[in-house]
Amino acid sequence: MIVILKPKTKKGDVDKLINKLESQGVQVHPVDGAEISILGLVGDTTKIDSSSIEACDIVERVMYVQEPFKKANRAFHPDNSIIDVCGRKIGGKEIALIAGPCSVETKEQITLIANEVKKSGAGFLRGGAFKPRTSPYSFQGLGADGLELLKIARKNTGLPIVTEIMSPHYIEKFVQDVDIIQVGARNMQNFDLLKELGTINKPILLKRGLSATIEELLMSAEYIMAGGNEDVILCERGIRTFETYTRNTLDLSAIPAIKKLSHLPVVVDPSHSAGKAWMVDSLSKAAVAVGADGLIIEVHNNPAKALCDGQQSITPASYDKLVSELRLIAEAVGREI
Amino acid sequence: MIVILKPKTKKGDVDKLINKLESQGVQVHPVDGAEISILGLVGDTTKIDSSSIEACDIVERVMYVQEPFKKANRAFHPDNSIIDVCGRKIGGKEIALIAGPCSVETKEQITLIANEVKKSGAGFLRGGAFKPRTSPYSFQGLGADGLELLKIARKNTGLPIVTEIMSPHYIEKFVQDVDIIQVGARNMQNFDLLKELGTINKPILLKRGLSATIEELLMSAEYIMAGGNEDVILCERGIRTFETYTRNTLDLSAIPAIKKLSHLPVVVDPSHSAGKAWMVDSLSKAAVAVGADGLIIEVHNNPAKALCDGQQSITPASYDKLVSELRLIAEAVGREI
Amino acid sequence: MIVILKPKTKKGDVDKLINKLESQGVQVHPVDGAEISILGLVGDTTKIDSSSIEACDIVERVMYVQEPFKKANRAFHPDNSIIDVCGRKIGGKEIALIAGPCSVETKEQITLIANEVKKSGAGFLRGGAFKPRTSPYSFQGLGADGLELLKIARKNTGLPIVTEIMSPHYIEKFVQDVDIIQVGARNMQNFDLLKELGTINKPILLKRGLSATIEELLMSAEYIMAGGNEDVILCERGIRTFETYTRNTLDLSAIPAIKKLSHLPVVVDPSHSAGKAWMVDSLSKAAVAVGADGLIIEVHNNPAKALCDGQQSITPASYDKLVSELRLIAEAVGREI
Amino acid sequence: MIVILKPKTKKGDVDKLINKLESQGVQVHPVDGAEISILGLVGDTTKIDSSSIEACDIVERVMYVQEPFKKANRAFHPDNSIIDVCGRKIGGKEIALIAGPCSVETKEQITLIANEVKKSGAGFLRGGAFKPRTSPYSFQGLGADGLELLKIARKNTGLPIVTEIMSPHYIEKFVQDVDIIQVGARNMQNFDLLKELGTINKPILLKRGLSATIEELLMSAEYIMAGGNEDVILCERGIRTFETYTRNTLDLSAIPAIKKLSHLPVVVDPSHSAGKAWMVDSLSKAAVAVGADGLIIEVHNNPAKALCDGQQSITPASYDKLVSELRLIAEAVGREI
Repeated sequence: MIVILKPKTKKGDVDKLINKLESQGVQVHPVDGAEISILGLVGDTTKIDSSSIEACDIVERVMYVQEPFKKANRAFHPDNSIIDVCGRKIGGKEIALIAGPCSVETKEQITLIANEVKKSGAGFLRGGAFKPRTSPYSFQGLGADGLELLKIARKNTGLPIVTEIMSPHYIEKFVQDVDIIQVGARNMQNFDLLKELGTINKPILLKRGLSATIEELLMSAEYIMAGGNEDVILCERGIRTFETYTRNTLDLSAIPAIKKLSHLPVVVDPSHSAGKAWMVDSLSKAAVAVGADGLIIEVHNNPAKALCDGQQSITPASYDKLVSELRLIAEAVGREI
Repeated sequence: MIVILKPKTKKGDVDKLINKLESQGVQVHPVDGAEISILGLVGDTTKIDSSSIEACDIVERVMYVQEPFKKANRAFHPDNSIIDVCGRKIGGKEIALIAGPCSVETKEQITLIANEVKKSGAGFLRGGAFKPRTSPYSFQGLGADGLELLKIARKNTGLPIVTEIMSPHYIEKFVQDVDIIQVGARNMQNFDLLKELGTINKPILLKRGLSATIEELLMSAEYIMAGGNEDVILCERGIRTFETYTRNTLDLSAIPAIKKLSHLPVVVDPSHSAGKAWMVDSLSKAAVAVGADGLIIEVHNNPAKALCDGQQSITPASYDKLVSELRLIAEAVGREI
Repeated sequence: MIVILKPKTKKGDVDKLINKLESQGVQVHPVDGAEISILGLVGDTTKIDSSSIEACDIVERVMYVQEPFKKANRAFHPDNSIIDVCGRKIGGKEIALIAGPCSVETKEQITLIANEVKKSGAGFLRGGAFKPRTSPYSFQGLGADGLELLKIARKNTGLPIVTEIMSPHYIEKFVQDVDIIQVGARNMQNFDLLKELGTINKPILLKRGLSATIEELLMSAEYIMAGGNEDVILCERGIRTFETYTRNTLDLSAIPAIKKLSHLPVVVDPSHSAGKAWMVDSLSKAAVAVGADGLIIEVHNNPAKALCDGQQSITPASYDKLVSELRLIAEAVGREI
Repeated sequence: MIVILKPKTKKGDVDKLINKLESQGVQVHPVDGAEISILGLVGDTTKIDSSSIEACDIVERVMYVQEPFKKANRAFHPDNSIIDVCGRKIGGKEIALIAGPCSVETKEQITLIANEVKKSGAGFLRGGAFKPRTSPYSFQGLGADGLELLKIARKNTGLPIVTEIMSPHYIEKFVQDVDIIQVGARNMQNFDLLKELGTINKPILLKRGLSATIEELLMSAEYIMAGGNEDVILCERGIRTFETYTRNTLDLSAIPAIKKLSHLPVVVDPSHSAGKAWMVDSLSKAAVAVGADGLIIEVHNNPAKALCDGQQSITPASYDKLVSELRLIAEAVGREI
């Protein structure tokens, strides 16, 4: 941590600040220049509150030099984390393929799609039961009934199921029924939910918030991990920018960034980011090429009839073709599908 | 709602789509041009799911012409809503002054500040008990103990209290203890929390999310109002942009926009937006000049010792001076302090 | 400047880097910690190229602690700069009122509007002759003929004229004909144009680019000032964000930021930022309240017939009413109109 | 084009507007609903100025349904444009590999790098002679001398040369000396420069502005094409977002978007977007996978000594390895290197 002092600060005031900082357990190295003076803080700075330092009269600015996350940090865990989900691995050599409809609608729909995507090579089934919708008047998902339908599809295909949680009231039920609990982009900084998920023993798929920095995503992972649950899978799903042609801007440079900063696996959601079914194909290929550990793709047997998000879903036939093409890309970058 | 068809679409396919749409209760007016054809949808389009239409092969794009919010819409409620909080009004001629520390720390601290800001003219006391912090290792607030301290300060001063809720587990307690329940920016689209707050009888202060559009803010208000709780106060607190000098970019044009689109009152938080105490003064004046119904300002008796967010707090003395200057601005725009 | 070294760097490599840096004329102060080491650079770091340092194997990151602008920096010029334009001042106690149509259309139009805004209290006439339009098929302005019409209006009213330059080919003509040369947002980083404007003796109104940071705006001012022309007036005109309701997001916090960082005057353009005539009124009031040194407002005698940008223009009658209301705000913040 | 009328508009006023619009050569189809009325405009709407319509009292909003670009539009030119540069093709099956240093420094440097990248498979040499730098005090490039060095490297290797133009004063020289003229991101909306480039006979590499939408990029291409020069190569180089870990956010979804909207070739610059040499590898692979027609990569023989932008350059050895790996990706998506 670096504390930049205001010009022409009195020595006495600086000494007082240094004492205050040292009393919090760090060593302080002053650097005095003609125009500017700084304090270099060395030691465990995680407990130092930068904003309270910045509130001091003589302080211009405080800068971090170390990442504020610990458990998610690759520096302290050089090897990739490989998450085990019912015997399947996420984060290893094999690309995790997660696929399924936006919303669970009927037993027939979810079972049919589950069977189709399994045939194509998917290893996990996704499907929304509780749906975060911008409008209170839009279809909100089948809720608990949707979970039951997902369980039937799992029984039928053996595919572990991934679905989104929206309220802490349902954590117990999700722990029982679901194989990976998804935290949606809008809840990425719902810290109370994250804390509760930190106390359970179930993999979490944590989606990046629409305007969350990479560091904030890792800090949200840290919330879960700090509670003891270290099975966190990160997900890039597009960020909000000024561009309006695509619904969100898929930030693929986040993948190498996350792989460098953290040991956690990271998957890409090409369906929600662009919001356009015809882009899923090329964005999926780019995601594998850039180094993603998996893909979460919306597949629907009849996009035009889907109750929501139809426009970003592809058909099982398109998915099948896509997976076969992705194999070549995966191989080209030393991965497997 | 406008449906733009792809070029060279077959008449038969268009007719099918028209039938499908009309079966959902709207009238469809086709407009055929040499290069482009559109369908104008008239009637109650709130139940039409635009994405399922966009999933149709022959559809290029769907555009909204009407705001998707109803209860929050000024079109259906031309007069300003004035929210009554323990006999004080928010949304009327008088500017609501909400002030207090970022975090409740001790009985002495909160009581002292409450008394100071009351003397200066504040009508409401703010103070964080449950704190949303980016890092799990930062101070998380005093929690329920903080609520008790706020209640003591209220008893002492008569000021209604405003504080943030972070989990639905605490709703019952907040209804009992608190006068205005604040929903923070990070929970603006925590839809399950919003739904639960829609069923209670207590004013809600809803902060705009860091990357939420004005329309999304109003849709989140709609979630609460759709449940029956129409006492929603909106709050502009800065949005996330590329600019890094300020922590967030205060979007003051959102105030006239919201006043035009909605009848709900809207207040401004100049402390969190800029993240710099020395900017609170000028941003507060601008907020009143632009038409805000209130100001929520962080005041701390000793910013340098605050456990969090110190750098954005001003002292009681600065607050007192600010309020006296704001009176002139308020008067200049036909308001009162 | 702070150089953050990678963990576990060899002493020999660090010493080499220190020598290299010191050979560029700065003093280097190393700060060694258990987990991290940094180098504090003191002295004239403006010639040090941070990216070439960051290219070194042992370097993690380079951070600036000083602003990279000199001539525009308030640190070296504590008093406000007051720009003299034909005897009128911009940057002093009086708020500069610049008004006029988006485009110059006819002699009658520009003369009529010039007279009207002068009567209301405007001190400067604006009007576009060369127009930057997104589409090559849109009206591009009257060009040199427009300048002639502006000169007629100036002769008629005595108001100095402000108009935009788009190509260095016209600099000589602008120096002869125009009183303030405007550089539009899209050319804020047209560095060759800025350099040429640095060599002339004429005030420049430099608009902030749509996605330019405050620091970049000041660096562009620095380009002009470094050439010898220190009469630069900055202009905040809205930045590009995710919000789509307004055309751009007016960043009023940029005003106190610029006043703190620089001694240059800064005016606000409330017409282009929001792109909505009905917002000009409240945004203008906010701009004066926040501390702007002037307002540049589009006024058109018949907005509905304007060839471009009609929707953001207000009528002379609205302008007249607005100016009288602005007087109260100006007074409330210790300024004059 | 769709004109949305305000509620409760008088029939007489609507009829007047319809007449006005029809007098501008379009057909108007009114659609009347209970709550809202719209006008559908059919015909050649490129000459209709939407803002002057929006300035009408009775108009709520105007929406476009057609892209405003013509010559760049795939709708009117279904086949991919393939640009011929000295016998080499850009936009065909083969991926164009453009490589070279950020800045031309010496004859030895540019010739050595040119020979190296040619051996690795590059088909074009890039190198900056005129450099757009944020600070006037930074190295501004060798200018005309740099062009001479590029010509020597071209003679030596046969590689066509690509370099950036910053001022219209140099167009004649660039036409003589250079094979592809690059327009940098900061000049993407320097419309006067674009117009002049439209009149010459030389391929243009047009970089997307930091905050330019895909549509604006295509409109800037349209400026050049409208003048007669249809040899425009587009370049995605990262956009400005809130994320600060990467210098810019590479928007790879722009590639399929541009390929759908336009027939022009589009290349990707992975060096400038992320600003980190270690990311060039994975972003290049993603760019080829997503469908880019080429890559423009910074290669430097000694990044740590580069006078600028060193941190985003890779070495010739890394480039060689990268190209060999890219071949596999290119093959996987049906392209060639």
